[in-house]
Amino acid sequence: MRQFFEVRRKKTCGHTLHRHCCLCFIFVNKLRSSVNVSLFANIINVRHVEIVQSAKEAMAALQKRNPALQPMLAIIQVSILSILPFQTVNTLTSVCPQIGLNITQICLAKECSEDEIVEELLKLNEDPRVHGVYLHLPPASLTSRVLNTLKPEKDVNGISDLNMGRLVRGDLSKGFVPPVASAVLDLLENHGKSVLLVGEDGPLGVALQCLIERSGMVALKSQWRSKSLQTQVMQADAVVLLGAGNMDVPPTWVRPGAAVIRCEPTLETGTVGCIVIVIINVVRSGRRWLQEQQYRPWQLRSLKLQPLTPVPSDIEISRAQTPKPVDQLAEEIGLLPEELEAYGRSKAKVRLSLLDRLHAQPDGKYVLVAGITPTPLGEGKSTVTIGLVQALSAHLKLNSFACLRQPSQGPTFGVKGGAAGGGYAQVIPMEEFNLHLTGDIHAITAANNLVAAAIDARMLHEATQSDKALFSRLVPSVNGVRRFSPIQISRLNRLGINKTDPASLTPEEISTFVRLDLDPSKITWQRVLDTNDRFLRKITVGQASTEKGQIREVWFDIAVASEIMAILALADSLEDMKNRLARMVVGTSRSGEPVTAEDLGVSGALAVLMKDAIKPTLMQTLEGTPVFVHAGPFANIAHGNSSVLADKLALKLVGRDGFVVTEAGFGADIGMEKFFNIKCRASGLRPNVVVLVATVRALKMHGGGPNVSAGAPLPREYIDENLSLVAGGCHSNLRKQIQIAHLFGVPVVVALNVFRTDTQAEIDLVCQLAKECGASDAVPCHHWAQGGRGSLELAQAVNEAASRPSNFQFLYNKEMPIVEKIRTIAKKVYGADDIKLSPEAEAKIDYYSQQGYGSLPICMAKTHLSLSHMPDKKGAPTGFVLPIRDVRASIGAGFVYPLVGTMSTMPGLPTRPCFYDIDLDPVTEEITGLF
Amino acid sequence: MRQFFEVRRKKTCGHTLHRHCCLCFIFVNKLRSSVNVSLFANIINVRHVEIVQSAKEAMAALQKRNPALQPMLAIIQVSILSILPFQTVNTLTSVCPQIGLNITQICLAKECSEDEIVEELLKLNEDPRVHGVYLHLPPASLTSRVLNTLKPEKDVNGISDLNMGRLVRGDLSKGFVPPVASAVLDLLENHGKSVLLVGEDGPLGVALQCLIERSGMVALKSQWRSKSLQTQVMQADAVVLLGAGNMDVPPTWVRPGAAVIRCEPTLETGTVGCIVIVIINVVRSGRRWLQEQQYRPWQLRSLKLQPLTPVPSDIEISRAQTPKPVDQLAEEIGLLPEELEAYGRSKAKVRLSLLDRLHAQPDGKYVLVAGITPTPLGEGKSTVTIGLVQALSAHLKLNSFACLRQPSQGPTFGVKGGAAGGGYAQVIPMEEFNLHLTGDIHAITAANNLVAAAIDARMLHEATQSDKALFSRLVPSVNGVRRFSPIQISRLNRLGINKTDPASLTPEEISTFVRLDLDPSKITWQRVLDTNDRFLRKITVGQASTEKGQIREVWFDIAVASEIMAILALADSLEDMKNRLARMVVGTSRSGEPVTAEDLGVSGALAVLMKDAIKPTLMQTLEGTPVFVHAGPFANIAHGNSSVLADKLALKLVGRDGFVVTEAGFGADIGMEKFFNIKCRASGLRPNVVVLVATVRALKMHGGGPNVSAGAPLPREYIDENLSLVAGGCHSNLRKQIQIAHLFGVPVVVALNVFRTDTQAEIDLVCQLAKECGASDAVPCHHWAQGGRGSLELAQAVNEAASRPSNFQFLYNKEMPIVEKIRTIAKKVYGADDIKLSPEAEAKIDYYSQQGYGSLPICMAKTHLSLSHMPDKKGAPTGFVLPIRDVRASIGAGFVYPLVGTMSTMPGLPTRPCFYDIDLDPVTEEITGLF
Repeated sequence: MRQFFEVRRKKTCGHTLHRHCCLCFIFVNKLRSSVNVSLFANIINVRHVEIVQSAKEAMAALQKRNPALQPMLAIIQVSILSILPFQTVNTLTSVCPQIGLNITQICLAKECSEDEIVEELLKLNEDPRVHGVYLHLPPASLTSRVLNTLKPEKDVNGISDLNMGRLVRGDLSKGFVPPVASAVLDLLENHGKSVLLVGEDGPLGVALQCLIERSGMVALKSQWRSKSLQTQVMQADAVVLLGAGNMDVPPTWVRPGAAVIRCEPTLETGTVGCIVIVIINVVRSGRRWLQEQQYRPWQLRSLKLQPLTPVPSDIEISRAQTPKPVDQLAEEIGLLPEELEAYGRSKAKVRLSLLDRLHAQPDGKYVLVAGITPTPLGEGKSTVTIGLVQALSAHLKLNSFACLRQPSQGPTFGVKGGAAGGGYAQVIPMEEFNLHLTGDIHAITAANNLVAAAIDARMLHEATQSDKALFSRLVPSVNGVRRFSPIQISRLNRLGINKTDPASLTPEEISTFVRLDLDPSKITWQRVLDTNDRFLRKITVGQASTEKGQIREVWFDIAVASEIMAILALADSLEDMKNRLARMVVGTSRSGEPVTAEDLGVSGALAVLMKDAIKPTLMQTLEGTPVFVHAGPFANIAHGNSSVLADKLALKLVGRDGFVVTEAGFGADIGMEKFFNIKCRASGLRPNVVVLVATVRALKMHGGGPNVSAGAPLPREYIDENLSLVAGGCHSNLRKQIQIAHLFGVPVVVALNVFRTDTQAEIDLVCQLAKECGASDAVPCHHWAQGGRGSLELAQAVNEAASRPSNFQFLYNKEMPIVEKIRTIAKKVYGADDIKLSPEAEAKIDYYSQQGYGSLPICMAKTHLSLSHMPDKKGAPTGFVLPIRDVRASIGAGFVYPLVGTMSTMPGLPTRPCFYDIDLDPVTEEITGLF
Repeated sequence: MRQFFEVRRKKTCGHTLHRHCCLCFIFVNKLRSSVNVSLFANIINVRHVEIVQSAKEAMAALQKRNPALQPMLAIIQVSILSILPFQTVNTLTSVCPQIGLNITQICLAKECSEDEIVEELLKLNEDPRVHGVYLHLPPASLTSRVLNTLKPEKDVNGISDLNMGRLVRGDLSKGFVPPVASAVLDLLENHGKSVLLVGEDGPLGVALQCLIERSGMVALKSQWRSKSLQTQVMQADAVVLLGAGNMDVPPTWVRPGAAVIRCEPTLETGTVGCIVIVIINVVRSGRRWLQEQQYRPWQLRSLKLQPLTPVPSDIEISRAQTPKPVDQLAEEIGLLPEELEAYGRSKAKVRLSLLDRLHAQPDGKYVLVAGITPTPLGEGKSTVTIGLVQALSAHLKLNSFACLRQPSQGPTFGVKGGAAGGGYAQVIPMEEFNLHLTGDIHAITAANNLVAAAIDARMLHEATQSDKALFSRLVPSVNGVRRFSPIQISRLNRLGINKTDPASLTPEEISTFVRLDLDPSKITWQRVLDTNDRFLRKITVGQASTEKGQIREVWFDIAVASEIMAILALADSLEDMKNRLARMVVGTSRSGEPVTAEDLGVSGALAVLMKDAIKPTLMQTLEGTPVFVHAGPFANIAHGNSSVLADKLALKLVGRDGFVVTEAGFGADIGMEKFFNIKCRASGLRPNVVVLVATVRALKMHGGGPNVSAGAPLPREYIDENLSLVAGGCHSNLRKQIQIAHLFGVPVVVALNVFRTDTQAEIDLVCQLAKECGASDAVPCHHWAQGGRGSLELAQAVNEAASRPSNFQFLYNKEMPIVEKIRTIAKKVYGADDIKLSPEAEAKIDYYSQQGYGSLPICMAKTHLSLSHMPDKKGAPTGFVLPIRDVRASIGAGFVYPLVGTMSTMPGLPTRPCFYDIDLDPVTEEITGLF
C-alpha cells in the first residue's frame, strides 16, 4: 500500500500547483470548497487508474501463489431506503471486479435489529471465503456489540476494540489500522518530524497518534481553543485537523512547506479514498490467510514433563498433566476454527474439508511403527509411537503427529491394559481415550446391528408374505402414487431391470426384486457389541412367538471386528465410505448370488449413522503434541491399522518437513505386511521409514528362553543378563522382520524399548546386531520412564533415515490369483515352504473368483505369536506348510481373509475383571483404577 | 474507588504544606527526591489505614450479597532470584488479607519460558475462583502473547489489547483501566479543565488521554523538545509528565494552582499505590462476576422464522435454519464457558457444577406438558412443548427452557416419526437430536451390557471353580499381598463380615463372599441394544463350547428400557447416580437374597461409563431458544420423563420469572401421574401448571368415532366437522384428565393442537367445554404451521396460570402398602372399581415388602391407549377391575412396576423400514429422508 501511495504522490506532484507542498495543495484547496470530500476522494479521482492497477497487481501476485484463492469482501448494508450515501457501495462494486476481488452484498431491511446484523456477521465470520467485511450501516447500528462481533481478522476497517488495542499496544501484525489513519500516515511520511493533531480525540485521533509516534515522528496535540494553538501550528511540520467541522486554521499560521490534513469523522467510512484502503486490507487479509495455510514449523506450546521415579501408574501420570484446550492445540497446528468440532475440552473431530484446503501442501514423512513377534505381554509399539512424536515435536521441534487406533472398550473392563500408551509416553486424558472417545465405535455398533436386524426382519417378512404383499409394502402407494426409492433403483439396475415405473414390472421381475431369498445357512453378517460378553459367542435368535419359528444360530463379535470398522479405516472420503458400505456382502441367496447392504435398503442409513465417525479425533500426548485417534480394526480378521483419513490429514498438517507416525497391530509379519499391501494400496501413500520395536524380553524368548505368559511371574532368564539368548533372538526373529520390511524397499530403524531389568551389555548387543542384520540404525528408547527426552535418539535416527530415498514396492500384484497371493505371503513373509488349502477354502476361493472378487488384496488371519501358524514356534521357523482352514471376504472393506487356525472374535471376562478396581470419585470426578 | 481517593485527598490537605495545591505538593517534592516512588506510594504510606478500610467495606458489601463469594487475586511472579522489587508482592500479601481478599501466588523459575507463563495463565483463566491476575514479571516476559492470553475480565492491570481497545473506544463497562491511569485521572478531577501530557506516548499515555477527554477535560500533548512547551505548561491546569526519566519542567513554568503529575513507565506495575487499585479492580471483577450470576432477562438472539405454506418436511425446515453456535447460546443464557462441554457446533453438555454456582438463585416456574389419551398417531405433546417455549422466549421475552427426552435411535430407522417436534416447532439440528446426540444412550448400552456380561461370566466362573480358587482370583496376591478392593469391602459389610484382612476370613465367610450363587431362573437383568431387532426378543445364550453348557434363555430390550436409563432420569447428582447404580438388583440368589450390581463388583465401572451421560445436552429450538435433551426412559415399565437434573439446571438458568417446560410421556393418566408421584418425589420440585394437549382428532375418537390406526387412511369423521363427537370426547376423556391433574392440586391449561382439517366451530367448542370441565384456560395452538407466534395465546395463558397459587400434593403416601398404592392409582386415576392381583403378583409384592422395598413409589406398566387396561375402551371407561399380571421392581431407579397386560420392550422393523428413504449426500453432507 505504502508503495502505491508514493507512486501516486510523485505523479500528483507533477501536474499540480505548489503552495505548501505538492501534496497538500490539492488537499487544502479542495477541502475548502467541500468539507465532505476528503483528500483521498480527490487523489483517487485523479489517479484512479494507477491505484486500481496497483491493487490488481497485489491481487495477481497473491493468486499466483495460490490460484484457488479468491479473496472476497462482504458488504453489509441497509436497504435502498438507507440514509447513507451510495457512493461507497457503488465504488466498491465498480472497483472490486476490476482488481479481481469478489464482492458479496448483504442488504438488510432499514429497520433491521442488532440481532439480525449480528446474525449476518456470525455467518460471515464462519465463512472461509470471506476475507473482509465492510459495515455500511448508519452510525446508530454500529454498536459496540456489532463492532466486536466481527472477527478481528476480517475487520478491515480496524474498528473493533481488539484491533484498536493492538494498534495502541503496537502489534500491527494481526489487526487492521483504520483506513483514514493509515492513509494520513502515509501522506505524512517524509514530511517532517513534528505533527500537530488539533481537535477532539476519539478512536481515529488515538490511532493516528499511535501510528505517528511509532513511525518515528513526534505527535503533539492541541485543541481549537488552546491559546498556544497558533504557536504550535507555526512550529509543526504537519497539522492534522480532527473533527474540525467548520473550524479551520488560518493559512497564515501554517509555516511554509508544512502540510495541513483535515479528517472529518463522517469521512471515516464513507469516502472513496478510504474504500480503496479497505480493498487493500481485504487483499492483505487474504494474504495473511494464505500465509497461515503455508507450511511452517508449529509454534507448539509443549507441556513440561517432570518424570518421577518410580514411574507412577498410567492414570496417575495422565491425571497429573493438564491437557491444553483442544481448540488451542488445533490453532497451534494450523487448523481453522471451522475445521474443528470439539467434543468436550480435550477431544475434537477434524473435518475432512481440511484435505481440500491443504490440497496443494506437500505431505510430510510417513513413518510406520511395527514390532518383532511379541510375547503375550506386548512389547510397547504404542508407547514407542507416542514417545517418538513427543521427541520429534516437543524436543526436536519438528512438526509431528501420531496416528493411533481407537481401542475397544470391552477389554478396558476385562483384562487388557490401556491402549493410550503408558508411563511418560501417553495420550491424555487416557480415560477419554479408553472410554467412549467421540462415539465412533458406538456408531459402528449401531450401524452394524441395524444391518443385522434388517437381515432377520427381511427373512421373516419374505417368509410370511406373498410377492404382491411384499411389493405393495416395499413400494407403497403414497397419495395414490407408487415410486421406487433411489436405493431400490440401484437394486433394480444391479438385477438388470432397467425400469423406473413400479407398474411396469412383470410378476417375475417383482419376485426377483422383492425377494433377496437369503440362504439362512450362508449369512455372514453377525451382530456386535463393544463388551466382552463370552455368552454371546454362540446363540440362537428368533425364539419368540412373534418371529414365527424363524430361529437361527448366530453369534456376536466384539464391535471392532465389524466390517464397518475396517471400512472406516480404509475409506478415503465420505463418498468412498458410503460406496463401501453399500457394497458390503451380508450373505448369499439360495441361488448363490451375493446379497449386499444396498439390497437390504439400509446403506443410506448406515452412511448417516457413520457421518461423524469418519472424522478423525484430535487429542494430545503428555507433552502436548498432536495425536489422531481413528478406527481400530481387528489385526487378524481385518488389517489392524488406524485410518487412512487420519494419516492423510496428519500428513498435510505436518507439512513438508514434518512426520506422521502411525502404528500397525501385532508383529511386522502381520501388521506391517497388511499396512503395505492393504492400507497403502487403498490410500496411495508411501512410507519413508519403518520403526521396528524390539524388547530384550521378546528377543530372549525368540533366542530360546522359556515361555512367557500373562499373569505368571517372569522366569529368571528374563530378569538376569543373558547375552546368548538375546543374540539368538536377534539372529532369528529380528533379522527376519527386518528382511520383511526390506522386501517392500523401506529402511528400518530398530527401536529397543528398554526395560528396567535390561543391562547395558544387552542393550549394546541388540543395537549392534540389529545394524548387522540390515537396520539403518538401532537405538535404545527410554520414553516410558522419561517421555520424549528418552526417545531423542530414536527421533534423530528416524529423521536421518527419512532423508534417504525409499524404494517402496508391493509384495504382490493384486491381479494375481487369490491362491498365488496367499502363497506369496506365506513363503516370502512367514518363511513357509508352501500353503495347504482345505476343500472348504478351495471352494470359497473359486466362489470369490467367480464373483469378481479375485483381485482384492489378502488379509491373513493368523496368530501374532509366531511367524508361523504355530504360536509356540518362536524365532524364525522354517520347514512348515501353512494350512488355510477357510477363506472369507469383506467386500466392502475390500479384502479376502484366509483363516489360518481359529480366531476368537469375542473376548471374555476373567474371574476378576479390571472393573473391580475402577471407580469414580463423585466429588472430584476423578477416575481411579483404570490401569 | 473514586470516593476513597477523595477522602484521602482532603485528609492529605489537612496536614501538608501548600505550594501549588495540597495534592501536588507531596507529589512534586517527593518525586524530586526519588523518581522511582510515585505519588501514590506516598499517599498510601500516609493514608494506608483509610484505604484498607475503604476496600474492606467494598468487600464486605459484596460478600453480604453473596456470602459464598471469595474474590481471589492470583499473582504470577518469578522466583526469589528475580530482579524485580519485592515490595509489590509484600504489599499485596499484607494488604489483601486485611480486606478479606484471597491471594494465590504462583512462583515460576527465573528462566521460565513464555510457554510456561502461558500455561499458568490458561489455568487461571479457567479457574472460577480467581477474579484477577497480577503479572509480576520482568518486562521481557510481558510479551504480547502473555498479555493477551489472560482473559480480559481478569486483566486487572488493563494491559491486554482488548481492554486497551475498549478504553479507546469508550466501553468501560467490561474491561479494566490501567491502575496508574485511573489514579492519575482521579487526582486530576476538579483540578481544572486543561491537562497537558508531556513526553513519549505509549499505552499509558493513550489511556490517560482517553480518560481525560472522556471525563470532559481537554487533553493537550507536547514533547520535551517542543519549542512551545513552556507556553503550554504555563497555560495548563495540570501537567502530566510521561516517561520523563530525569527530565522535568522548571517549577517556574507551572502556573500557580496547577498540578504536576509524573508517571514513570517503571511505576506502572510496581508501586504500592497502583497495587491498591489492582486490589480494587479485583473486588470490582468479583462484583461483575456476581452480577452475571444474578437473575436477568436473557439477551437472547432469536432466530427469525419465515414459515412457508404448505409446511415443508421436518428435515427441510430444520436444514433451512442455521442454529446459533452453541457456545453463543450458552453465553446468552448465562452459562460460563467452563460450564460447557461442546459436542460439535450445535450441541453441548452442561456441567452440574452450575447447580452449586446458582445455588442461591430462585427457581423459575415449572410447567408440565401432558396429554389426553392419544390415538396411535400421537397428539403432538413435543411440538406443543417446543412451540410454547418458542413463544415464551422469542416472543414474550420471558426466559424459558424446554426439557425433552432423548429418543431411542431404534425407531428412527423403523416406523416412528422424529421426536424433535415437527413443523415450525422443532429442536435443531433435528438429525443430531434423532441420531447419536452426545452418546448418552450408547453409554447406557455399554453400562447395561457390562452388567449382563458380568452376570453370565460370574455364573460360569462360580460353576467351574472351588471357593478357594475363586477367592484367590477375586482377591489376588499382588507382590505377595492380598487386599480387598473398596467395592469388595462394601459387599463384605452387607454380608455382615466386618473384616478387612483377607487372611482372616473363615472358610464359610469365604464361601459366602465369593459365591453370589445367582439363581439362573431369577435373573431379572437383560441385555439391551438401541436397534429394533425383533429376533432378540427371546434368545438362548452360552451355546459355545467355551461356556461349558451354561446355556440360558434371555432377551434383549431396546436400550432406553434399561434400568440405567431410569436412573439417569431420576438421579440428582453424580453421587446419587453412583449409589443408585450400586443398588440395582440384577437377580436373586438361590437362597432368595437380592444380588446387586455392587455385588458383581461392577458399579464403579458403571459410574465411570456414565460420567458424561449425567450432564444434560443443550440444544436449541428453530427460534434459537434453549432446550435440554436428557434421558428418555420407557413410559410403561419406567416413568417416561426426562431427567431431574435437566429440569433443575434449567430452573436455575431461567431464574425467578422464567419458565421450564417439560414433557411427560403418554396420556396424563400415565406420564403425568408418574411425573408427580415418582419424578417430583425424587426431585423435590413442585409444578406450577399442567398444559394438557388435546386434538380434535383424539377427542372425536373418545366421543365415539371409529378406530384410528397408523398407516390406514383417516375415516371421514376425522376430516369433516362433527361437533357431537368432539363434545363427547371433551365430556369423557378430557374432563377425566383435567380431574386427574386437579387430584394433585395443579391448575390446567388445555392446549388444542390445531390441525388443518379442524373447523372454527370445533376449535371454539373444545375451548369452551375445556373451561367448563375445570381448565383454567383453553386455547388453540398453531405452532406447527407458525412456530412460536402460533403459540402466543398458550404462552400467555400459561404465564397467567403460573401466577396463581398451586397447592401441589402427592396422590399417595409412599409408606402405604404396595397393594394400596396400586389400588389408589387404579381407582382415583384410571377410574377402576378395584384391582385384581395374580398369584404371581401377590408373591412378588410380599417378596419386595420383605426385602424392604415396600415404600418405593409405583410405576404402572399399562397401555397408554385407554384410561383402562383395555386399549379399545376410549373416553373415560368405568366399571372395570384392573388386573395386575405381575410385579417387578427397579431398585436402583427406585420404583416397583406392576404389569397390566404385556408390554413389548423390543420393537421390530416393518417390511419397509424408514431407512429405505434415509440417505446422505457425500458432497454437501446433507441428510435426506429423515422424517
